[in-house]
Amino acid sequence: MGRLVMKFGGTSVAGLEEIRNAARHVAREVAAGHQVAVVVSAMAGQTDRLVGLSTEAAPMHDAREYDAIVASGEQVTAGLMAIVLQEQGIPARSWAGWQVPIRTDGVHAAARITAIEADQMRKRMEQGQVAVVTGFQGIGPDQRITTLGRGGSDTSAVAIAAALEAACDIYTDVDGIYTTDPRIVPEAHKMPKISYEEMLELASLGAKVLQTRSVELAMVHGVKLRVRSSFEPADVPENANTGPGTLVCDEEDIVEQQVVSGITYSKDEAQISLRRVRDKPGVSAAIFGPLAEAEISVDMIVQNVSADGETANLTFTLATKDLPRALEVLEGAKEKIGFGELNHATGVAKVSVIGIGMRSHAGVASQMFKALADKGINIQLITTSEIKISVLIDAAYTELAVRVLHSAYELDKT
Amino acid sequence: MGRLVMKFGGTSVAGLEEIRNAARHVAREVAAGHQVAVVVSAMAGQTDRLVGLSTEAAPMHDAREYDAIVASGEQVTAGLMAIVLQEQGIPARSWAGWQVPIRTDGVHAAARITAIEADQMRKRMEQGQVAVVTGFQGIGPDQRITTLGRGGSDTSAVAIAAALEAACDIYTDVDGIYTTDPRIVPEAHKMPKISYEEMLELASLGAKVLQTRSVELAMVHGVKLRVRSSFEPADVPENANTGPGTLVCDEEDIVEQQVVSGITYSKDEAQISLRRVRDKPGVSAAIFGPLAEAEISVDMIVQNVSADGETANLTFTLATKDLPRALEVLEGAKEKIGFGELNHATGVAKVSVIGIGMRSHAGVASQMFKALADKGINIQLITTSEIKISVLIDAAYTELAVRVLHSAYELDKT
Repeated sequence: MGRLVMKFGGTSVAGLEEIRNAARHVAREVAAGHQVAVVVSAMAGQTDRLVGLSTEAAPMHDAREYDAIVASGEQVTAGLMAIVLQEQGIPARSWAGWQVPIRTDGVHAAARITAIEADQMRKRMEQGQVAVVTGFQGIGPDQRITTLGRGGSDTSAVAIAAALEAACDIYTDVDGIYTTDPRIVPEAHKMPKISYEEMLELASLGAKVLQTRSVELAMVHGVKLRVRSSFEPADVPENANTGPGTLVCDEEDIVEQQVVSGITYSKDEAQISLRRVRDKPGVSAAIFGPLAEAEISVDMIVQNVSADGETANLTFTLATKDLPRALEVLEGAKEKIGFGELNHATGVAKVSVIGIGMRSHAGVASQMFKALADKGINIQLITTSEIKISVLIDAAYTELAVRVLHSAYELDKT
Repeated sequence: MGRLVMKFGGTSVAGLEEIRNAARHVAREVAAGHQVAVVVSAMAGQTDRLVGLSTEAAPMHDAREYDAIVASGEQVTAGLMAIVLQEQGIPARSWAGWQVPIRTDGVHAAARITAIEADQMRKRMEQGQVAVVTGFQGIGPDQRITTLGRGGSDTSAVAIAAALEAACDIYTDVDGIYTTDPRIVPEAHKMPKISYEEMLELASLGAKVLQTRSVELAMVHGVKLRVRSSFEPADVPENANTGPGTLVCDEEDIVEQQVVSGITYSKDEAQISLRRVRDKPGVSAAIFGPLAEAEISVDMIVQNVSADGETANLTFTLATKDLPRALEVLEGAKEKIGFGELNHATGVAKVSVIGIGMRSHAGVASQMFKALADKGINIQLITTSEIKISVLIDAAYTELAVRVLHSAYELDKT
């Protein structure tokens, strides 16, 4: 029992059929005695339509007007969800971000939530009314509508859960977080639980299930986050032990800690190497400053002393689509940076193993390198974080590497 | 110079091309030194889409949610108009009804404006910023979005003009008010001016150019209302004498008063006659009460003493589509009403002559009857108001009657 925030994304509210289905999930939780707040995205396609209109009106446009336009999408879904809930006999009302109010800073189109004054809404919820809140938006210091940027509905849901001291269920089109991509490894299985830290690594590695920002927020406020599918029948009895979906929580709440929880990969990577870079202070800034200005994101960065002992070799990865622009930027800054040679390669992939258990277990990395070596997979680059090891390999070996590692860390066993 | 409210309806903001064109009209008025507020409708088709979604969600739905959903349409147009104006170098911002705020009563989906607190908006306008306001909506006493009902954007525009002590130009897809339908009478011409009273009669007779409610409001507050086309080029020099379109104003402001200003007609009328109705108090209520409950609008009502001197004959008109239901209702209430005979006819039309000059000129009615009689057109029913005479005739003669009357009152001459 207690308070629960249920968030439904664009595909889960794509049309009235989907909204009715989502409402049945809400009805189940209400029947179970929860006080429920529902957070909704715009109907799939609507945000694109509204963004398209704004851009067509003027490519460079006032972000305040953009926000007013785009925020209308969630307003429609919230109203429809309230109507559908009422139709199913459940008291409900819609709340626009400005009505709650969800206060944000004034950075239009990329606002951050500063406070949620949820007293009125909480009171209504205590009286048994479901609160249907527009995701992705709030009201700025100038009393104008702000939006949180794409995917901001997850962040809205977590922030509202924090304000209401509620749990937060994120309904989406997948039924949880998997040990790896089931299209590559049929033995991949859904994790019942995953720690915030692991989820953050997964999210930043391109697992599109949850916004990085929302996971950070959940971690800071200790909001228990569950990822689950809105397309499962709403009336199936839930597994009492694990619950449906995947629970994202504190590592202390995970009893049987795996050393490695999951394997991820990312293709479409390219690699740039700068050889014989003068090894002096400020040289990294001279390289990555111009790339950042050109809005090119770089990922893995590795620097080594070169053979002559006086210069350095520096290698980094980036998305293949950004490669031509990056090369142009670096050639243009060659004088300033001072490097001997500029090489690049495409057709590489990044494979990562993630696990909070690495902190206390030695040998995770060597196990990875050995497993790959056994299959003749050459490692071109290695980076590590506290709970993650990533390697760059020839993209042709991606699937093989993922399968090998999935077995090596015994993730094939459920 | 001074303040000006410019209202653009759905077809005038149907797409970005139309919005850009409307913005050019705004640019012209700004260049002429006006402080401008623009009131916009939803893009053509959007309101229908949103109403359709609400109805599909539940045929009987919470009007508060309906309002939240439907009001989003104007929000999109207002943002786009502000962006397009800025793109044309004109400072502008959008104002949602709740931001102004435009306060209304709590009758959702059919709210009435109670107050417009325009201080903030006026201040911005004085600084040279165009205010783009969402038409058709406001905020109720419960701090939720209300809508004014269909066509409410005209009412919004006039109310804002009253609050700002501004003139009000209604941009639409016709270039003014005509003496009659030019498709029937090629000699019909645009009136440079028309009085509020005449416009009210025209509006209630089905001239769809202006909402009755907005004309009433303009009359009460003395707002000068101009009906003009948004599809004329924005940069054509205006006629200094009359200005473009038709000005709706006090009759004192119309120097050359015509006796009859215009001829209107309405086909698709049906007629019901109740013969030998017991002539006693309450009988009219017994007839029209059940019809009103069935939401059937009746138009002309004529009652006469019948030949026997003790009972009455009562005839009224209604829309043809409502006839079967009306007959059913009346047969069902036959006992209660007490009538001898129930007749009905379809294929009749109402033709009306309207003119504020009738008040001071005798003989307008007899001139009408004579003109129709000369062409052998039989009059079945007559009703009159202070500035209008309506007759019911065989629908086959509609065009002939309109042409004959247009000549008889010398409206063919410009």
